[in-house]
Amino acid sequence: MNNELSTPPTEASSRWLNLSQQNYIHQVSIDCVIFGYEDKQIKVLIPKINFKGDFWAIPSGFVYQDEDVDQAAERILRERTSLRDIYLEQFRVFGKADRSGKEFMNRLIELNLDKVTEKQEGKEIKGDYDWFTKRFISIGYYALVDISKVIPQKSFIDESIGWYTIHELPDMIMDHNQIVEKALKALRSDLDEKLIAFNLLPETFTMKEVQELYEAIFNKTFVRTNFQKMILDLNVLERLEKKFTGAANKAPFLYKFKK
Amino acid sequence: MNNELSTPPTEASSRWLNLSQQNYIHQVSIDCVIFGYEDKQIKVLIPKINFKGDFWAIPSGFVYQDEDVDQAAERILRERTSLRDIYLEQFRVFGKADRSGKEFMNRLIELNLDKVTEKQEGKEIKGDYDWFTKRFISIGYYALVDISKVIPQKSFIDESIGWYTIHELPDMIMDHNQIVEKALKALRSDLDEKLIAFNLLPETFTMKEVQELYEAIFNKTFVRTNFQKMILDLNVLERLEKKFTGAANKAPFLYKFKK
Repeated sequence: MNNELSTPPTEASSRWLNLSQQNYIHQVSIDCVIFGYEDKQIKVLIPKINFKGDFWAIPSGFVYQDEDVDQAAERILRERTSLRDIYLEQFRVFGKADRSGKEFMNRLIELNLDKVTEKQEGKEIKGDYDWFTKRFISIGYYALVDISKVIPQKSFIDESIGWYTIHELPDMIMDHNQIVEKALKALRSDLDEKLIAFNLLPETFTMKEVQELYEAIFNKTFVRTNFQKMILDLNVLERLEKKFTGAANKAPFLYKFKK
Repeated sequence: MNNELSTPPTEASSRWLNLSQQNYIHQVSIDCVIFGYEDKQIKVLIPKINFKGDFWAIPSGFVYQDEDVDQAAERILRERTSLRDIYLEQFRVFGKADRSGKEFMNRLIELNLDKVTEKQEGKEIKGDYDWFTKRFISIGYYALVDISKVIPQKSFIDESIGWYTIHELPDMIMDHNQIVEKALKALRSDLDEKLIAFNLLPETFTMKEVQELYEAIFNKTFVRTNFQKMILDLNVLERLEKKFTGAANKAPFLYKFKK
């Protein structure tokens, strides 16, 4: 399933004009890798930019002067997923001096001059794209969401937004493919000590589903008995009583995460 | 041993005047936690600022427009330790909106107006301390060094610089004590998979010294036989031949890290 939304692009050029006047910290951005889990696959929520040329970019945003960096990440995630209280981890800063690709940004803007230009009282005013052609230091966050609860939202610059499996990601702008790769690596290394994978599952689940989730994240198979022992030894799961139906009950046990 | 240097403060006020014109990225700083190991203790290299009032702050700096963030951290570390090729890890961004403490910075500057004021052609010019009273997003790095090779260097704002054990840190400015705490936490969690602790040891070492180092980092004791087995199982150490002296040789084996 690809949750593509395809409402018409919003009228948004004036937002380009005011970007640098919005009291954001300059040259700092936040990039969010939103992981979901569906059809035994780890997926990433990725918007396609409403620009000529095929441009994909992970959800990004900026930090207001009076806003904690973590709050900014939460705001951006809320805007894109419609969810509050998302599990998120700041995992790495992307700080190469040449990562923003001035050349690329100029090309993207030249291709789409109509989008960043506005007529005011008969005069053409170019949007404030100087903002974008400066170098950005980006703070990477990854989020783990229950995919069934997400209602993906486009931002004003997006044409569509959809879920992509980690094995079939689009070619994204700048270093965004690398950011997703690093996020996945951080997720794997965080898993053992933090038990965070359960954020990707619905409220209740079977042991088989937990194993499939871990297999999707690590991209390898586990021996069932070993895996179950490892998970149960963590002592974080609560087994639910089966409902008595009278008939023989072959359904597997359901578990939930102990809060 | 406390490697305090106490050369007289350098004449430096004009550097304050020019700070924001130095082509740094604004509102972004780098904070470095430099870990060394000595006398069975983990230590941190901390300068004392040459200001009225007792102010300690971990080594910090800014990022030039054309400089990778990692390069900036390397430059700052090189300036403070006189070492090249230091092992370092970017471990976390400190992004609270109120972490920079405008009030604190103003007090610090009021107390030291003479330091940030300069006489030019008979006119008093206040230093560019607006730079410092703005909010900073700080990127935290920790470094692991062989303490015996470090020659601690003061920056132009320091009165002295010295090594402090993690159990007796000075009260530092802003959130710097918390930054050290988080760095130590990151170091502990990185240890298992990364084998990085060996960066804190000299070229060759005994197994007992390795154990003492791990005990200092985790602040707990390990059973000798278990610990040795764990370390040897990693298969990263090379045991050196003992030199034949003719006499009975009771010296322990020396090891070195396989490159």
